[in-house]
Amino acid sequence: MKLYHSPFSSNALKARVTAHHLGIEPELVTIDLAKGEQRRPEFMAVNPNGKVPVLVDDDFVLSESQAIMAYLADKTPGQTLYPTELRARAEVNKWMFWSANHWGPSISQINWERLVKKFLGMGEPDEAVVAKAVTMFHDFAKVLDSHLEKREWLVGNGVTLADIAVGCPLMVAVPAQLPLASYANLQAWFARVQELPAWKAVAPRG
Amino acid sequence: MKLYHSPFSSNALKARVTAHHLGIEPELVTIDLAKGEQRRPEFMAVNPNGKVPVLVDDDFVLSESQAIMAYLADKTPGQTLYPTELRARAEVNKWMFWSANHWGPSISQINWERLVKKFLGMGEPDEAVVAKAVTMFHDFAKVLDSHLEKREWLVGNGVTLADIAVGCPLMVAVPAQLPLASYANLQAWFARVQELPAWKAVAPRG
Ligand SMILES: N[C@@H](CCC(=O)N[C@@H](CS)C(=O)NCC(=O)O)C(=O)O
Ligand SMILES: N[C@@H](CCC(=O)N[C@@H](CS)C(=O)NCC(=O)O)C(=O)O
Repeated sequence: MKLYHSPFSSNALKARVTAHHLGIEPELVTIDLAKGEQRRPEFMAVNPNGKVPVLVDDDFVLSESQAIMAYLADKTPGQTLYPTELRARAEVNKWMFWSANHWGPSISQINWERLVKKFLGMGEPDEAVVAKAVTMFHDFAKVLDSHLEKREWLVGNGVTLADIAVGCPLMVAVPAQLPLASYANLQAWFARVQELPAWKAVAPRG
Repeated sequence: MKLYHSPFSSNALKARVTAHHLGIEPELVTIDLAKGEQRRPEFMAVNPNGKVPVLVDDDFVLSESQAIMAYLADKTPGQTLYPTELRARAEVNKWMFWSANHWGPSISQINWERLVKKFLGMGEPDEAVVAKAVTMFHDFAKVLDSHLEKREWLVGNGVTLADIAVGCPLMVAVPAQLPLASYANLQAWFARVQELPAWKAVAPRG
Protein backbone atom coordinates (compact mmCIF):
# COMPACT_ATOMS: atom_id res chain seq x y z
CA MET A 1 0.00 0.00 0.00
CA LYS A 2 1.07 3.55 -0.71
CA LEU A 3 -0.09 6.68 1.10
CA TYR A 4 0.36 10.12 -0.42
CA HIS A 5 0.69 12.51 2.50
CA SER A 6 2.24 15.69 3.82
CA PRO A 7 3.72 15.99 7.32
CA PHE A 8 1.74 19.25 7.68
CA SER A 9 -1.63 17.69 6.86
CA SER A 10 -3.96 16.79 9.72
CA ASN A 11 -6.06 14.83 7.25
CA ALA A 12 -3.07 12.73 6.24
CA LEU A 13 -2.33 12.25 9.94
CA LYS A 14 -5.77 10.64 10.38
CA ALA A 15 -4.83 7.99 7.85
CA ARG A 16 -1.36 7.49 9.30
CA VAL A 17 -2.43 7.13 12.94
CA THR A 18 -5.17 4.70 11.88
CA ALA A 19 -2.81 2.61 9.76
CA HIS A 20 -0.21 2.45 12.51
CA HIS A 21 -2.79 1.48 15.14
CA LEU A 22 -3.97 -1.32 12.86
CA GLY A 23 -0.44 -2.55 12.22
CA ILE A 24 -0.49 -1.50 8.58
CA GLU A 25 2.61 0.20 7.18
CA PRO A 26 1.90 1.89 3.86
CA GLU A 27 4.84 3.26 1.94
CA LEU A 28 4.74 7.05 2.36
CA VAL A 29 4.96 9.40 -0.59
CA THR A 30 5.38 13.02 0.45
CA ILE A 31 3.60 15.71 -1.54
CA ASP A 32 5.12 19.15 -0.99
CA LEU A 33 2.05 21.34 -0.56
CA ALA A 34 4.09 24.55 -0.24
CA LYS A 35 5.56 23.87 -3.68
CA GLY A 36 2.10 23.10 -5.09
CA GLU A 37 2.94 19.48 -5.94
CA GLN A 38 -0.69 18.59 -5.19
CA ARG A 39 -1.74 20.45 -8.34
CA ARG A 40 0.76 18.82 -10.68
CA PRO A 41 -0.80 16.66 -13.41
CA GLU A 42 0.85 13.46 -12.07
CA PHE A 43 -0.86 13.93 -8.72
CA MET A 44 -4.16 15.28 -10.09
CA ALA A 45 -4.38 11.98 -12.00
CA VAL A 46 -4.32 10.22 -8.63
CA ASN A 47 -6.70 12.64 -6.89
CA PRO A 48 -8.48 15.17 -9.11
CA ASN A 49 -9.29 17.16 -5.96
CA GLY A 50 -5.57 17.90 -5.62
CA LYS A 51 -5.46 17.01 -1.94
CA VAL A 52 -3.74 14.60 0.41
CA PRO A 53 -4.16 11.98 1.76
CA VAL A 54 -4.67 9.39 -0.94
CA LEU A 55 -4.33 5.66 -0.35
CA VAL A 56 -3.34 3.32 -3.16
CA ASP A 57 -3.95 -0.35 -2.39
CA ASP A 58 -2.95 -2.34 -5.47
CA ASP A 59 -5.17 -0.91 -8.17
CA PHE A 60 -7.60 0.68 -5.74
CA VAL A 61 -7.20 4.45 -5.28
CA LEU A 62 -9.03 6.11 -2.39
CA SER A 63 -9.15 9.74 -1.30
CA GLU A 64 -10.91 11.40 1.67
CA SER A 65 -9.14 10.81 4.96
CA GLN A 66 -12.14 9.45 6.82
CA ALA A 67 -13.03 7.05 4.00
CA ILE A 68 -9.44 5.81 4.11
CA MET A 69 -9.69 5.28 7.88
CA ALA A 70 -12.90 3.27 7.51
CA TYR A 71 -11.43 1.21 4.66
CA LEU A 72 -8.26 0.34 6.57
CA ALA A 73 -10.27 -0.71 9.61
CA ASP A 74 -12.85 -2.70 7.63
CA LYS A 75 -9.98 -4.52 5.92
CA THR A 76 -8.43 -5.62 9.21
CA PRO A 77 -9.92 -8.71 10.88
CA GLY A 78 -10.54 -8.41 14.61
CA GLN A 79 -9.95 -4.66 14.81
CA THR A 80 -11.85 -2.59 17.39
CA LEU A 81 -11.31 0.94 16.05
CA TYR A 82 -14.44 0.79 13.93
CA PRO A 83 -17.11 -1.16 15.79
CA THR A 84 -19.36 -3.37 13.72
CA GLU A 85 -22.36 -3.19 16.07
CA LEU A 86 -24.99 -0.99 14.36
CA ARG A 87 -25.36 1.83 16.88
CA ALA A 88 -21.74 2.02 17.97
CA ARG A 89 -20.74 2.27 14.31
CA ALA A 90 -23.36 4.97 13.75
CA GLU A 91 -21.91 7.01 16.61
CA VAL A 92 -18.40 6.68 15.25
CA ASN A 93 -19.70 7.79 11.85
CA LYS A 94 -21.45 10.72 13.50
CA TRP A 95 -18.20 12.05 14.93
CA MET A 96 -16.29 11.42 11.70
CA PHE A 97 -18.85 13.45 9.73
CA TRP A 98 -18.93 16.09 12.45
CA SER A 99 -15.17 16.42 12.15
CA ALA A 100 -15.34 16.63 8.34
CA ASN A 101 -18.22 19.11 8.22
CA HIS A 102 -17.72 21.32 11.29
CA TRP A 103 -14.76 20.73 13.58
CA GLY A 104 -12.01 20.32 10.99
CA PRO A 105 -13.05 23.31 8.84
CA SER A 106 -13.26 25.67 11.84
CA ILE A 107 -9.72 24.70 12.87
CA SER A 108 -8.33 24.78 9.31
CA GLN A 109 -9.50 28.33 8.86
CA ILE A 110 -7.76 29.49 12.03
CA ASN A 111 -4.67 27.55 11.04
CA TRP A 112 -4.69 28.97 7.52
CA GLU A 113 -4.88 32.56 8.74
CA ARG A 114 -2.43 32.27 11.63
CA LEU A 115 0.14 29.81 10.30
CA VAL A 116 -0.09 28.80 6.68
CA LYS A 117 -0.39 32.30 5.17
CA LYS A 118 2.71 33.45 7.02
CA PHE A 119 4.55 30.28 6.03
CA LEU A 120 3.68 30.81 2.35
CA GLY A 121 4.50 34.52 2.47
CA MET A 122 0.83 35.44 1.88
CA GLY A 123 0.70 38.18 4.47
CA GLU A 124 -0.93 38.81 7.81
CA PRO A 125 -3.98 36.99 9.20
CA ASP A 126 -7.33 38.48 8.23
CA GLU A 127 -8.63 39.15 11.74
CA ALA A 128 -12.28 39.23 10.67
CA VAL A 129 -11.93 35.71 9.26
CA VAL A 130 -10.10 34.56 12.40
CA ALA A 131 -12.82 36.00 14.64
CA LYS A 132 -15.58 34.21 12.73
CA ALA A 133 -13.69 30.91 12.74
CA VAL A 134 -12.92 31.23 16.46
CA THR A 135 -16.63 31.72 17.21
CA MET A 136 -17.39 28.58 15.21
CA PHE A 137 -14.57 26.75 16.98
CA HIS A 138 -16.04 27.62 20.41
CA ASP A 139 -19.51 26.41 19.38
CA PHE A 140 -18.11 23.02 18.47
CA ALA A 141 -15.50 22.81 21.25
CA LYS A 142 -18.37 23.23 23.74
CA VAL A 143 -20.23 20.31 22.21
CA LEU A 144 -17.14 18.14 22.36
CA ASP A 145 -16.21 19.19 25.89
CA SER A 146 -19.70 18.43 27.26
CA HIS A 147 -19.80 15.09 25.50
CA LEU A 148 -16.52 14.19 27.21
CA GLU A 149 -17.70 15.15 30.68
CA LYS A 150 -18.05 11.58 31.86
CA ARG A 151 -16.19 9.75 29.16
CA GLU A 152 -12.64 8.77 28.36
CA TRP A 153 -13.27 8.21 24.65
CA LEU A 154 -15.85 9.58 22.25
CA VAL A 155 -17.72 6.31 21.67
CA GLY A 156 -17.88 3.36 24.06
CA ASN A 157 -15.01 2.50 26.36
CA GLY A 158 -12.02 2.51 24.08
CA VAL A 159 -10.38 4.42 21.30
CA THR A 160 -12.18 4.39 17.94
CA LEU A 161 -11.87 6.11 14.59
CA ALA A 162 -13.96 8.89 16.14
CA ASP A 163 -11.13 9.88 18.49
CA ILE A 164 -8.60 9.87 15.68
CA ALA A 165 -10.84 11.87 13.30
CA VAL A 166 -11.64 14.49 15.94
CA GLY A 167 -8.18 14.48 17.54
CA CYS A 168 -6.03 14.98 14.43
CA PRO A 169 -7.20 18.50 13.57
CA LEU A 170 -5.86 19.46 17.03
CA MET A 171 -2.31 18.69 15.89
CA VAL A 172 -2.02 22.45 15.28
CA ALA A 173 -3.55 23.42 18.66
CA VAL A 174 -0.37 25.03 20.02
CA PRO A 175 1.03 26.83 16.96
CA ALA A 176 -2.43 28.01 15.78
CA GLN A 177 -3.22 29.13 19.37
CA LEU A 178 -6.55 27.36 19.51
CA PRO A 179 -8.47 28.73 22.52
CA LEU A 180 -8.70 25.51 24.54
CA ALA A 181 -8.20 26.95 28.03
CA SER A 182 -11.79 26.58 29.22
CA TYR A 183 -12.26 23.03 27.91
CA ALA A 184 -10.83 20.76 30.58
CA ASN A 185 -12.55 17.56 29.45
CA LEU A 186 -11.46 18.14 25.89
CA GLN A 187 -7.87 18.72 26.98
CA ALA A 188 -7.80 15.60 29.15
CA TRP A 189 -9.17 13.54 26.28
CA PHE A 190 -6.70 15.00 23.77
CA ALA A 191 -3.86 14.16 26.18
CA ARG A 192 -5.11 10.54 26.07
CA VAL A 193 -5.13 10.60 22.28
CA GLN A 194 -1.58 11.94 22.28
CA GLU A 195 -0.52 9.06 24.55
CA LEU A 196 -1.68 6.45 22.03
CA PRO A 197 1.33 4.55 20.73
CA ALA A 198 0.15 5.14 17.16
CA TRP A 199 -0.05 8.89 17.76
CA LYS A 200 3.38 8.98 19.35
CA ALA A 201 4.85 7.01 16.49
CA VAL A 202 3.61 9.20 13.65
CA ALA A 203 2.45 12.64 14.86
CA PRO A 204 4.83 15.57 14.71
CA ARG A 205 6.06 16.71 18.17
CA GLY A 206 3.67 19.37 19.58
CA MET B 1 -38.70 6.51 14.46
CA LYS B 2 -38.79 10.26 14.55
CA LEU B 3 -36.88 12.63 12.28
CA TYR B 4 -36.35 16.26 13.21
CA HIS B 5 -36.09 18.15 9.96
CA SER B 6 -36.77 21.36 8.10
CA PRO B 7 -38.19 21.49 4.58
CA PHE B 8 -35.43 24.02 3.73
CA SER B 9 -32.59 21.75 4.87
CA SER B 10 -30.64 19.84 2.24
CA ASN B 11 -29.09 17.80 5.05
CA ALA B 12 -32.50 16.77 6.31
CA LEU B 13 -33.42 15.92 2.71
CA LYS B 14 -30.55 13.40 2.62
CA ALA B 15 -32.11 11.53 5.52
CA ARG B 16 -35.63 11.76 4.09
CA VAL B 17 -34.76 10.55 0.58
CA THR B 18 -32.75 7.67 2.08
CA ALA B 19 -35.53 6.65 4.46
CA HIS B 20 -38.14 6.77 1.72
CA HIS B 21 -35.98 4.73 -0.67
CA LEU B 22 -35.53 2.10 2.05
CA GLY B 23 -39.26 1.97 2.80
CA ILE B 24 -38.83 3.55 6.23
CA GLU B 25 -41.32 6.21 7.27
CA PRO B 26 -40.11 8.16 10.28
CA GLU B 27 -42.54 10.56 11.92
CA LEU B 28 -41.45 14.07 10.87
CA VAL B 29 -40.98 16.84 13.42
CA THR B 30 -40.44 20.23 11.79
CA ILE B 31 -37.95 22.63 13.36
CA ASP B 32 -38.52 26.21 12.24
CA LEU B 33 -34.97 27.40 11.50
CA ALA B 34 -36.09 30.96 10.64
CA LYS B 35 -37.62 31.26 14.11
CA GLY B 36 -34.45 29.83 15.71
CA GLU B 37 -36.22 26.75 17.09
CA GLN B 38 -32.96 24.79 16.59
CA ARG B 39 -31.38 26.79 19.41
CA ARG B 40 -34.19 26.31 21.95
CA PRO B 41 -33.19 24.26 25.02
CA GLU B 42 -35.66 21.46 24.17
CA PHE B 43 -33.97 20.92 20.83
CA MET B 44 -30.40 21.53 22.04
CA ALA B 45 -31.03 18.65 24.46
CA VAL B 46 -31.64 16.43 21.42
CA ASN B 47 -28.73 17.81 19.37
CA PRO B 48 -26.29 20.11 21.19
CA ASN B 49 -25.05 21.28 17.77
CA GLY B 50 -28.44 22.92 17.22
CA LYS B 51 -28.88 21.49 13.73
CA VAL B 52 -31.24 19.30 11.76
CA PRO B 53 -31.56 16.48 10.86
CA VAL B 54 -31.70 14.32 13.97
CA LEU B 55 -33.02 10.77 13.97
CA VAL B 56 -34.54 9.26 17.09
CA ASP B 57 -34.95 5.49 16.95
CA ASP B 58 -36.37 4.35 20.27
CA ASP B 59 -33.79 5.56 22.78
CA PHE B 60 -31.08 6.04 20.17
CA VAL B 61 -30.47 9.64 19.10
CA LEU B 62 -28.34 10.28 16.03
CA SER B 63 -27.28 13.50 14.37
CA GLU B 64 -25.21 14.16 11.20
CA SER B 65 -27.14 13.53 8.02
CA GLN B 66 -24.65 11.14 6.47
CA ALA B 67 -24.36 9.07 9.64
CA ILE B 68 -28.17 8.83 9.65
CA MET B 69 -28.16 7.65 6.03
CA ALA B 70 -25.59 4.95 6.79
CA TYR B 71 -27.49 3.85 9.89
CA LEU B 72 -30.81 3.56 8.09
CA ALA B 73 -29.22 1.53 5.29
CA ASP B 74 -27.22 -0.73 7.63
CA LYS B 75 -30.44 -1.42 9.54
CA THR B 76 -32.30 -2.58 6.43
CA PRO B 77 -31.71 -6.16 5.32
CA GLY B 78 -31.13 -6.66 1.61
CA GLN B 79 -30.68 -2.96 0.79
CA THR B 80 -28.39 -1.93 -2.06
CA LEU B 81 -27.93 1.80 -1.29
CA TYR B 82 -24.90 1.16 0.90
CA PRO B 83 -22.88 -1.72 -0.59
CA THR B 84 -21.25 -4.09 1.87
CA GLU B 85 -18.37 -5.09 -0.42
CA LEU B 86 -15.22 -3.43 0.99
CA ARG B 87 -14.15 -1.27 -1.96
CA ALA B 88 -17.61 -0.28 -3.14
CA ARG B 89 -18.43 0.81 0.41
CA ALA B 90 -15.19 2.78 0.60
CA GLU B 91 -16.10 4.63 -2.58
CA VAL B 92 -19.54 5.47 -1.27
CA ASN B 93 -17.92 6.73 1.94
CA LYS B 94 -15.49 8.79 -0.12
CA TRP B 95 -18.32 10.68 -1.82
CA MET B 96 -20.23 11.12 1.43
CA PHE B 97 -17.19 12.69 3.10
CA TRP B 98 -16.46 14.74 0.00
CA SER B 99 -19.99 16.09 0.17
CA ALA B 100 -19.68 16.86 3.90
CA ASN B 101 -16.25 18.47 3.67
CA HIS B 102 -16.21 20.20 0.28
CA TRP B 103 -19.26 20.07 -1.96
CA GLY B 104 -21.97 20.82 0.60
CA PRO B 105 -20.14 23.74 2.26
CA SER B 106 -19.35 25.45 -1.07
CA ILE B 107 -23.05 25.31 -2.02
CA SER B 108 -24.29 26.32 1.46
CA GLN B 109 -22.20 29.46 1.36
CA ILE B 110 -23.62 30.51 -2.00
CA ASN B 111 -27.10 29.66 -0.78
CA TRP B 112 -26.63 31.56 2.47
CA GLU B 113 -25.51 34.73 0.69
CA ARG B 114 -28.00 34.64 -2.17
CA LEU B 115 -31.12 33.22 -0.51
CA VAL B 116 -31.08 32.78 3.24
CA LYS B 117 -29.82 36.27 4.15
CA LYS B 118 -32.54 37.89 2.07
CA PHE B 119 -35.14 35.54 3.52
CA LEU B 120 -34.09 36.39 7.09
CA GLY B 121 -33.86 40.12 6.34
CA MET B 122 -30.09 40.10 6.88
CA GLY B 123 -29.26 42.25 3.87
CA GLU B 124 -27.61 41.88 0.50
CA PRO B 125 -25.20 39.11 -0.53
CA ASP B 126 -21.54 39.78 0.27
CA GLU B 127 -20.21 39.52 -3.28
CA ALA B 128 -16.64 38.77 -2.13
CA VAL B 129 -17.89 35.75 -0.18
CA VAL B 130 -20.04 34.65 -3.13
CA ALA B 131 -17.09 34.93 -5.52
CA LYS B 132 -14.86 32.81 -3.30
CA ALA B 133 -17.55 30.16 -2.80
CA VAL B 134 -18.30 30.08 -6.54
CA THR B 135 -14.61 29.43 -7.27
CA MET B 136 -14.67 26.56 -4.79
CA PHE B 137 -17.91 25.31 -6.30
CA HIS B 138 -16.34 25.19 -9.78
CA ASP B 139 -13.30 23.27 -8.49
CA PHE B 140 -15.53 20.56 -7.08
CA ALA B 141 -18.16 20.62 -9.85
CA LYS B 142 -15.36 19.85 -12.31
CA VAL B 143 -14.29 16.81 -10.30
CA LEU B 144 -17.86 15.56 -10.15
CA ASP B 145 -18.55 16.23 -13.82
CA SER B 146 -15.41 14.36 -14.98
CA HIS B 147 -16.18 11.45 -12.70
CA LEU B 148 -19.62 11.20 -14.31
CA GLU B 149 -18.30 11.24 -17.85
CA LYS B 150 -18.93 7.56 -18.46
CA ARG B 151 -21.18 6.73 -15.54
CA GLU B 152 -24.82 6.90 -14.68
CA TRP B 153 -24.27 6.81 -10.90
CA LEU B 154 -21.37 7.80 -8.68
CA VAL B 155 -20.44 4.27 -7.56
CA GLY B 156 -21.13 1.04 -9.43
CA ASN B 157 -24.16 0.62 -11.65
CA GLY B 158 -27.00 1.80 -9.47
CA VAL B 159 -28.02 4.50 -7.06
CA THR B 160 -26.21 4.53 -3.70
CA LEU B 161 -25.99 6.78 -0.67
CA ALA B 162 -23.26 8.63 -2.60
CA ASP B 163 -25.77 9.94 -5.15
CA ILE B 164 -28.14 11.06 -2.42
CA ALA B 165 -25.41 12.73 -0.34
CA VAL B 166 -23.99 14.59 -3.35
CA GLY B 167 -27.37 15.24 -5.00
CA CYS B 168 -29.24 16.79 -2.07
CA PRO B 169 -27.15 19.97 -1.76
CA LEU B 170 -28.27 20.68 -5.36
CA MET B 171 -31.86 21.09 -4.18
CA VAL B 172 -31.12 24.84 -4.21
CA ALA B 173 -29.45 24.81 -7.66
CA VAL B 174 -32.12 26.94 -9.32
CA PRO B 175 -32.91 29.55 -6.63
CA ALA B 176 -29.24 29.92 -5.59
CA GLN B 177 -28.27 30.20 -9.27
CA LEU B 178 -25.53 27.61 -9.08
CA PRO B 179 -23.39 27.91 -12.22
CA LEU B 180 -24.07 24.47 -13.69
CA ALA B 181 -24.24 25.41 -17.37
CA SER B 182 -20.91 23.90 -18.39
CA TYR B 183 -21.37 20.61 -16.52
CA ALA B 184 -23.41 18.42 -18.83
CA ASN B 185 -22.58 15.08 -17.15
CA LEU B 186 -23.41 16.51 -13.76
CA GLN B 187 -26.73 17.85 -15.02
CA ALA B 188 -27.68 14.55 -16.65
CA TRP B 189 -26.84 12.68 -13.45
CA PHE B 190 -28.78 15.14 -11.28
CA ALA B 191 -31.79 14.70 -13.57
CA ARG B 192 -31.55 10.95 -12.87
CA VAL B 193 -31.43 11.62 -9.12
CA GLN B 194 -34.50 13.83 -9.42
CA GLU B 195 -36.32 11.02 -11.21
CA LEU B 196 -35.85 8.63 -8.29
CA PRO B 197 -39.24 7.84 -6.77
CA ALA B 198 -37.87 8.67 -3.31
CA TRP B 199 -36.69 12.08 -4.50
CA LYS B 200 -40.01 12.81 -6.17
CA ALA B 201 -41.88 11.80 -3.05
CA VAL B 202 -40.05 14.01 -0.56
CA ALA B 203 -38.04 16.76 -2.30
CA PRO B 204 -39.53 20.20 -2.69
CA ARG B 205 -40.50 21.05 -6.29
CA GLY B 206 -37.54 22.74 -8.06
N1 LIG C 1 -11.68 16.07 2.58
C1 LIG C 1 -10.27 15.78 2.42
C2 LIG C 1 -9.50 17.05 2.67
C3 LIG C 1 -8.04 16.90 2.39
C4 LIG C 1 -7.31 18.21 2.51
O1 LIG C 1 -7.93 19.28 2.64
N2 LIG C 1 -5.99 18.13 2.46
C5 LIG C 1 -5.16 19.31 2.54
C6 LIG C 1 -4.07 19.12 3.58
S1 LIG C 1 -4.78 18.88 5.21
C7 LIG C 1 -4.52 19.53 1.18
O2 LIG C 1 -4.05 18.60 0.55
N3 LIG C 1 -4.53 20.78 0.73
C8 LIG C 1 -3.88 21.17 -0.46
C9 LIG C 1 -4.75 21.99 -1.35
O3 LIG C 1 -5.99 22.03 -1.15
O4 LIG C 1 -4.19 22.61 -2.27
C10 LIG C 1 -9.85 14.70 3.39
O5 LIG C 1 -10.52 14.56 4.44
O6 LIG C 1 -8.93 13.96 3.09
N1 LIG D 1 -23.25 18.22 9.59
C1 LIG D 1 -24.67 18.36 9.74
C2 LIG D 1 -25.09 19.73 9.30
C3 LIG D 1 -26.53 20.02 9.56
C4 LIG D 1 -26.88 21.44 9.20
O1 LIG D 1 -26.01 22.27 8.91
N2 LIG D 1 -28.19 21.72 9.23
C5 LIG D 1 -28.66 23.05 8.95
C6 LIG D 1 -29.79 23.00 7.95
S1 LIG D 1 -29.22 22.32 6.39
C7 LIG D 1 -29.19 23.65 10.24
O2 LIG D 1 -29.89 23.01 11.00
N3 LIG D 1 -28.86 24.91 10.48
C8 LIG D 1 -29.34 25.65 11.59
C9 LIG D 1 -28.26 26.35 12.35
O3 LIG D 1 -27.08 26.03 12.16
O4 LIG D 1 -28.63 27.23 13.13
C10 LIG D 1 -25.39 17.28 8.96
O5 LIG D 1 -24.83 16.81 7.95
O6 LIG D 1 -26.49 16.88 9.36
